[in-house]
Amino acid sequence: MALLVETTTSGREYKVKDMSQADFGRLEIELAEVEMPGLMSSRKEFGPSQPFKGAKITGSLHMTIQTAVLIETLTALGAEVRWCSCNIFSTQDHAAAAIARDSAAVFAWKGETLQEYWWCSERALDWGPSGGPDLIVDDGGDVTLLIHEGLKAEQAFEKNGTLPDPKSTDNAEMQIVLTIIRDGLKTDPKRYHKMKDRVVGVSEETTTGVKRLYQMQANGTLLFPAINVNDSVTKSKFDNLYGCRHSLPDGLMRATDVMIAGKVAVVCGYGDVGKGCAAALKQGGARVVVTEIDPICALQALMEGLQVLTLADVVSEADIFVTTTGNKDIIMVSDMKKMKNNAIVCNIGHFDNEIDMHGLETYPGVKRITIKPQTDRWVFPETNTGIIVLAERITIKPQTDRWVFPETNTGIIVLAEGRLMNLGCATGHPSFVMSCSFTNQVIAQIELWKEKSSGKYEKKVYVLPKHLDEKVAALHLGQLGANLTKLSKDQADYISVPVEGPYKPAHYRY
Amino acid sequence: MALLVETTTSGREYKVKDMSQADFGRLEIELAEVEMPGLMSSRKEFGPSQPFKGAKITGSLHMTIQTAVLIETLTALGAEVRWCSCNIFSTQDHAAAAIARDSAAVFAWKGETLQEYWWCSERALDWGPSGGPDLIVDDGGDVTLLIHEGLKAEQAFEKNGTLPDPKSTDNAEMQIVLTIIRDGLKTDPKRYHKMKDRVVGVSEETTTGVKRLYQMQANGTLLFPAINVNDSVTKSKFDNLYGCRHSLPDGLMRATDVMIAGKVAVVCGYGDVGKGCAAALKQGGARVVVTEIDPICALQALMEGLQVLTLADVVSEADIFVTTTGNKDIIMVSDMKKMKNNAIVCNIGHFDNEIDMHGLETYPGVKRITIKPQTDRWVFPETNTGIIVLAERITIKPQTDRWVFPETNTGIIVLAEGRLMNLGCATGHPSFVMSCSFTNQVIAQIELWKEKSSGKYEKKVYVLPKHLDEKVAALHLGQLGANLTKLSKDQADYISVPVEGPYKPAHYRY
Amino acid sequence: MALLVETTTSGREYKVKDMSQADFGRLEIELAEVEMPGLMSSRKEFGPSQPFKGAKITGSLHMTIQTAVLIETLTALGAEVRWCSCNIFSTQDHAAAAIARDSAAVFAWKGETLQEYWWCSERALDWGPSGGPDLIVDDGGDVTLLIHEGLKAEQAFEKNGTLPDPKSTDNAEMQIVLTIIRDGLKTDPKRYHKMKDRVVGVSEETTTGVKRLYQMQANGTLLFPAINVNDSVTKSKFDNLYGCRHSLPDGLMRATDVMIAGKVAVVCGYGDVGKGCAAALKQGGARVVVTEIDPICALQALMEGLQVLTLADVVSEADIFVTTTGNKDIIMVSDMKKMKNNAIVCNIGHFDNEIDMHGLETYPGVKRITIKPQTDRWVFPETNTGIIVLAERITIKPQTDRWVFPETNTGIIVLAEGRLMNLGCATGHPSFVMSCSFTNQVIAQIELWKEKSSGKYEKKVYVLPKHLDEKVAALHLGQLGANLTKLSKDQADYISVPVEGPYKPAHYRY
Amino acid sequence: MALLVETTTSGREYKVKDMSQADFGRLEIELAEVEMPGLMSSRKEFGPSQPFKGAKITGSLHMTIQTAVLIETLTALGAEVRWCSCNIFSTQDHAAAAIARDSAAVFAWKGETLQEYWWCSERALDWGPSGGPDLIVDDGGDVTLLIHEGLKAEQAFEKNGTLPDPKSTDNAEMQIVLTIIRDGLKTDPKRYHKMKDRVVGVSEETTTGVKRLYQMQANGTLLFPAINVNDSVTKSKFDNLYGCRHSLPDGLMRATDVMIAGKVAVVCGYGDVGKGCAAALKQGGARVVVTEIDPICALQALMEGLQVLTLADVVSEADIFVTTTGNKDIIMVSDMKKMKNNAIVCNIGHFDNEIDMHGLETYPGVKRITIKPQTDRWVFPETNTGIIVLAERITIKPQTDRWVFPETNTGIIVLAEGRLMNLGCATGHPSFVMSCSFTNQVIAQIELWKEKSSGKYEKKVYVLPKHLDEKVAALHLGQLGANLTKLSKDQADYISVPVEGPYKPAHYRY
Repeated sequence: MALLVETTTSGREYKVKDMSQADFGRLEIELAEVEMPGLMSSRKEFGPSQPFKGAKITGSLHMTIQTAVLIETLTALGAEVRWCSCNIFSTQDHAAAAIARDSAAVFAWKGETLQEYWWCSERALDWGPSGGPDLIVDDGGDVTLLIHEGLKAEQAFEKNGTLPDPKSTDNAEMQIVLTIIRDGLKTDPKRYHKMKDRVVGVSEETTTGVKRLYQMQANGTLLFPAINVNDSVTKSKFDNLYGCRHSLPDGLMRATDVMIAGKVAVVCGYGDVGKGCAAALKQGGARVVVTEIDPICALQALMEGLQVLTLADVVSEADIFVTTTGNKDIIMVSDMKKMKNNAIVCNIGHFDNEIDMHGLETYPGVKRITIKPQTDRWVFPETNTGIIVLAERITIKPQTDRWVFPETNTGIIVLAEGRLMNLGCATGHPSFVMSCSFTNQVIAQIELWKEKSSGKYEKKVYVLPKHLDEKVAALHLGQLGANLTKLSKDQADYISVPVEGPYKPAHYRY
Repeated sequence: MALLVETTTSGREYKVKDMSQADFGRLEIELAEVEMPGLMSSRKEFGPSQPFKGAKITGSLHMTIQTAVLIETLTALGAEVRWCSCNIFSTQDHAAAAIARDSAAVFAWKGETLQEYWWCSERALDWGPSGGPDLIVDDGGDVTLLIHEGLKAEQAFEKNGTLPDPKSTDNAEMQIVLTIIRDGLKTDPKRYHKMKDRVVGVSEETTTGVKRLYQMQANGTLLFPAINVNDSVTKSKFDNLYGCRHSLPDGLMRATDVMIAGKVAVVCGYGDVGKGCAAALKQGGARVVVTEIDPICALQALMEGLQVLTLADVVSEADIFVTTTGNKDIIMVSDMKKMKNNAIVCNIGHFDNEIDMHGLETYPGVKRITIKPQTDRWVFPETNTGIIVLAERITIKPQTDRWVFPETNTGIIVLAEGRLMNLGCATGHPSFVMSCSFTNQVIAQIELWKEKSSGKYEKKVYVLPKHLDEKVAALHLGQLGANLTKLSKDQADYISVPVEGPYKPAHYRY
Repeated sequence: MALLVETTTSGREYKVKDMSQADFGRLEIELAEVEMPGLMSSRKEFGPSQPFKGAKITGSLHMTIQTAVLIETLTALGAEVRWCSCNIFSTQDHAAAAIARDSAAVFAWKGETLQEYWWCSERALDWGPSGGPDLIVDDGGDVTLLIHEGLKAEQAFEKNGTLPDPKSTDNAEMQIVLTIIRDGLKTDPKRYHKMKDRVVGVSEETTTGVKRLYQMQANGTLLFPAINVNDSVTKSKFDNLYGCRHSLPDGLMRATDVMIAGKVAVVCGYGDVGKGCAAALKQGGARVVVTEIDPICALQALMEGLQVLTLADVVSEADIFVTTTGNKDIIMVSDMKKMKNNAIVCNIGHFDNEIDMHGLETYPGVKRITIKPQTDRWVFPETNTGIIVLAERITIKPQTDRWVFPETNTGIIVLAEGRLMNLGCATGHPSFVMSCSFTNQVIAQIELWKEKSSGKYEKKVYVLPKHLDEKVAALHLGQLGANLTKLSKDQADYISVPVEGPYKPAHYRY
Repeated sequence: MALLVETTTSGREYKVKDMSQADFGRLEIELAEVEMPGLMSSRKEFGPSQPFKGAKITGSLHMTIQTAVLIETLTALGAEVRWCSCNIFSTQDHAAAAIARDSAAVFAWKGETLQEYWWCSERALDWGPSGGPDLIVDDGGDVTLLIHEGLKAEQAFEKNGTLPDPKSTDNAEMQIVLTIIRDGLKTDPKRYHKMKDRVVGVSEETTTGVKRLYQMQANGTLLFPAINVNDSVTKSKFDNLYGCRHSLPDGLMRATDVMIAGKVAVVCGYGDVGKGCAAALKQGGARVVVTEIDPICALQALMEGLQVLTLADVVSEADIFVTTTGNKDIIMVSDMKKMKNNAIVCNIGHFDNEIDMHGLETYPGVKRITIKPQTDRWVFPETNTGIIVLAERITIKPQTDRWVFPETNTGIIVLAEGRLMNLGCATGHPSFVMSCSFTNQVIAQIELWKEKSSGKYEKKVYVLPKHLDEKVAALHLGQLGANLTKLSKDQADYISVPVEGPYKPAHYRY
């Protein structure tokens, strides 16, 4: 795919897989709107006042149908938007096409190379001579990272003409980032300086990005205010938990069609994502084993009837392995070697380094058989008997072939190349739960933009106040037919809360 | 698609969508084999003795990956096989291609017209001048029906030259059947006579087909022995229950990506299929309402915490409707008119007449919008306000289009045109549970063939003996790591069963 | 307790623990009536016609509150009733008192010795000189056994004056039965002859009793017709399954207060009772392991995510053991020796021989500590270190004792002395589900009595026809707010059933 | 019961129901110890160093078997202890007896009057002339309240001789408190002054007490440091959630024996307690409806498939009502009037004012029928037809009474007089989960005592640091057979946590 920006008839830039899928994307966007009451209510409530008038928003977040509804909510509120995906496999090409054609500049397609991925990220930040963005919607923090690394490089260059050296790291992805920044420096050595000055703030979607932000806050290197959307209750306790409970089995089924009932499934990590995955697998009839480092989460798993063991305890008897930890090196190639034939290994937590993909790819003699996109069978050269025998088809006579099935070689199935399997193999979280997350995003963006000159937000990380969190939830109740009980004044006084909320102290855990 | 039979290099006939998918099919067949221990054990146990040597088998059963493993088990045991699908949407084209290329004559593709469907069925029965089939594997009984109707027509023709009159019925499908038979009569007026004489027996897969068989037995019109595979415990209590528990949410998710949690779902019918569906929806976080005619099944639903109401009670507040009854006229167009916008309507029970597709298709002014294959939105002309307003896209200025979302018109989503949604929208039941069902098929076929001359089986419907049912189960335990307890002689005597089983009386309900 | 029959002021015989509990019993009976719609409907439907006018019914069935409502339904329909319990621990003394005072002759108390148990059974059969019973309600078949054994002894005595010899068996309970019969022979050598002639039939409640009946039918020794109530769907699939799902955790909690969540529980047997127990334990947060001999039931367990292993595999790591098999020698003393300290061992299946109580009681040096009635801790003499150290209380000074807790000796907890723990430690199954079972009993008794002279029932075992089974279910729907759907004539014809049912073939498994 | 303090042979004061139950209590305490690994580990870890040497601890917390193990842990660590219960129904008399005999001064029995309750509280604080307590373990804050109110009264009295006036409030309980304080003032007008000076701190068990503490902190009236044990994760997310999931059905079953399956249950409030209750009822086969004021908690309920409605929506169709809100006036007598006959109403949240017991008791013509202790049927005078008909027993002739059952009057069942039903009707939470809560108590008490002179704790409310929370969890894993995974240094650095924890940020919600 040649990396050339294209332009719509209305003059907007884009780069997507196939513009002819725009109608299909539009139909699915319309279905999703019905399932995303929080975003549609935001359009109704804020649309008339056009709060984003004049705002240029760059987003880096899985370019799915749900994100399309988010983007069109931002534009419905007056924003101009440029977008890229935050994961090489997560784009839904019909969603990208519909948005590119109708609403915003999109640079995203399913199955980007890392090179392409960062080119797209750079494009989403590239607002041309008039400058931008004013606001950032980030997921995982890659766009924020790019600005921070870019500025660092410009400052070094300014000081003594040093250019970033991609060879200074052996992290393949960081090499690409440094290359992009280095090449950009030659064109405009003040690009990220200008961005830093202009960006009003970022709202960050996920745990990994939030962790980076808190580290930058701790180091004093954060360049602009950040709102931690991930830790809104209506995000982390909904999207992470109920979203994964839905999308983990969806990904498993689309990728492998395997029966979940009767299987032994290992869920590495029992945070919100792990809880959702374990619940889904248990309900599907699997016997679930959890691995944990945190004794509290481990005890929660036990209270739900799940066994808590180490990976080593079960590696050779389990059928399905799911990583949800947000950490690295959870399942190593040495573990995979011990697994049963056709064990399924996948990640729904964080980056692809939860699974030792590098170790697998470089294992001597390993053979990769792509069943279909995002579903690979990796066959190790060793068998139990040490001999490799290939399947053989024998034509006995015309019309009566015989297929001889020798003992299958030992291999495992890896989904989405170790990246987020729910986005790689299925369509990610369903609209309804994403409506919760994304309504938080909209509210965070409005808040940042409204307070851009008030000094309310310093270069720190903030969480949305609880009454907004409760509002997001409230916007989603009607659709599900719920009737909320109202406190009397007397009752509210008795428990010392306002009648209209917020109802819980900050430390309440839900 | 021109209806011409093609021929492989080895001379075998076929008609499939795309032979280039054969390699992909082969890869998935190999994965499925690992999940189908019952069939693979049968190959090991019976393969050497080639029990089907000389047998010609016609099968009419969803041409999926799992069926591919069944077919290759039959060929591995010595049979020659011709196959068609028993549902216009259920074929997996890569499975069909792999089998057509490697193992058997296949006539099937996803999305057949009814015309094409019956052409395929006829081809599967067409063993040429040397005659056949000897055995039939049937699902729903269409091939069995064709032979019975064919013979009836031949007898009438023989008697007084009468040809079947397609106009004698207003059932569209029956018209096609009669046309095919009529046209066949002109070529060979003894075709079905010869078949009747040759066929040793049929093994029938599903409730609907079994019902037809028992009716023919009652009427004395059954032409050959039949084994009712459906009522093996390891079929009806596994495939119907656990299979649907897996494949209903799979179909829903692939077709609509809708979040199940929080929704109100109506399951019409609480037999084995309904039990599986209700369990899946409940576990996914839906609130499930069951409709039932049978007070016993209704009480079972109540004991599981499900509400039992009539369709009329909940038609306007539910989000998802699933028919599982095996009956007709369950959800009528007048019901659909009362549903919420974007309510999902689907069938996983029986024929497409569980849902009043005819009423929907002929509703004055109704508009069908195909989101993607097997997922249609049907929009009724009436809105709440009586006015139809279409969505409107307005380009304000270059790069800032605005999308105006008026109140969406009232419409519903129908999956798989009212046919089996798990096969139409997903890939049907997973391999492991189909291994149970299909091992029963293999055993039934062996039994019929082995006893072809012994007179053991009359022109009646039989169920497999319990020790074979137990054997099928036993073949599937090892894969799931189970250890069975063994009775001592003393214990066996105490409960009056043989040490090696069978362990339960015939009437035991599991 | 001296075994003397007492008499109410109205002249009815009884023997209960404490007549002063009659008011308490009456209050709970009134609560239960609201929960037993099937029985109360029977009173309304049949009461006016007094179908049992003149009938003398002997019942041997757990003398609980629910049974009290059954008894008073029988008397409300015109019967005269004598009753005993079929289990030494299952009587609820307040229920017995209320019935004895108000409605029927009762001989039952909680904690009978075996001697007392059979004395009560004999009393329930003792209708005095005018003779009886006409009908028998049996549970486990002890009263039926007594008549059959009694007759056998009378015939031998008649032939050659032989008296039964209690020493001829080393089964302690059989010795008592033979003694009772022997002593009876001296008084009236035709007692059981007269009963045999008079008894119209028996309706049997449970699997164990039914098994005995089928054996007698097979041997040709059955003396009168029997209706197998156990295998009504509304009995075995309700009482056994949902009843145990309720009463197993109830018994565990009342006896031990142990937390179920987090524990490893072994359920021996996965029939209806085992399914209910496993579901309850899983839902309570335990990790459940099933032991099975039947591969079909084993596969069902696996499909629900339960592990299937042998007892030996898990005996030393599990916390709770439940037998549900209906067989003997399931948990032997050699198994108990390997269990963790304070492992809980209980039986909810059948007789106390599921657990090797004899082996435990006679284990050299074993010590029994009764925590409270029906909850014993059995301490084995061996500890891990081979030394027994007792707990020691040390008073340091006034008001500051110290309690020194040495390593606790290895012991296990056995509930209800190995007998049915839900009846011994709690109150058995709840009223609602017993209403299903007992409505079947009432219908069976009516049927036997109505057809007493018609010859409809031979000396065989019968199951109630399906339409009566469906009726029992229907009587329980209204209370739970269910609305049943009605078949149209057209739909009924389509599936070949009558509009008003029955809706399923006899072999349908639910 | 005469309110006289008694004395053991060793000279320790007590007042319990029945000292002869001490042996039974001891047996159950020994069973509980095996289930309370956190407390037993604390004895092992801290016992040798006797950290409480010289400390006098007053506790006011349900005097159950589990609390007995807590008390003996405190004494094993060197403390001298006086104890009362914090609820008039929650004492287990055998536990109280065992502790009174062996370990500590206890003033508690099941079924205290409010008068007796406060007398017991006063006794627990009464350390005689040498003074005390040094530390307080509180649950609900009644003992803390007594000290704060006492001091306030003494200060007023000191100032101008004012005595507290019980008539100044119409809260019956507060009247008793003021009376006690008034009477005490006459004896020793510096009693609470001395206590205030001596008390090192309080550790508070529950939400209600914690709320009071935060209010006092906000008002600046808190007299000593407080540790909020309730909000340790290992307390609120375990005891509240898993404890209630266990003890709610236990209480329901012991009190009413009602079948949960098939019923409609309303859970008022969906906090941790409500979540546990709803889970238990759903798993037991009920259809659960939740009422909530907080939209976030409401949305959580919906995601679990529960219906969210107001009480008014379902009051007349539900069977079981449970309050869990921590607020007052949740179910009013006007609601109860609308309920179905024999609807069950109970509270597991907070004080008995969640249910309008006052309104019920004073309803004109209402009749209270005590089925058994803690289980009352309240009959309203009105029936549907306006006529009251009583049940009638008619003796037809000797031995054939007939019992005529007219339509039962409309009444409801109230458990534990509206107080905590799990403690009133069953035995409260099981040992294992209480071990988590109480290990937090022990750690909090050690912390307060260790830091008594360091100034670390001001007159504020504190939560235990996360590493102690994680330690409490860790102490409970071994018993359940769990193996924890260990972070590598590299992994720990990657996610920026210490290898040995704590692993989560303070705001993490679990």
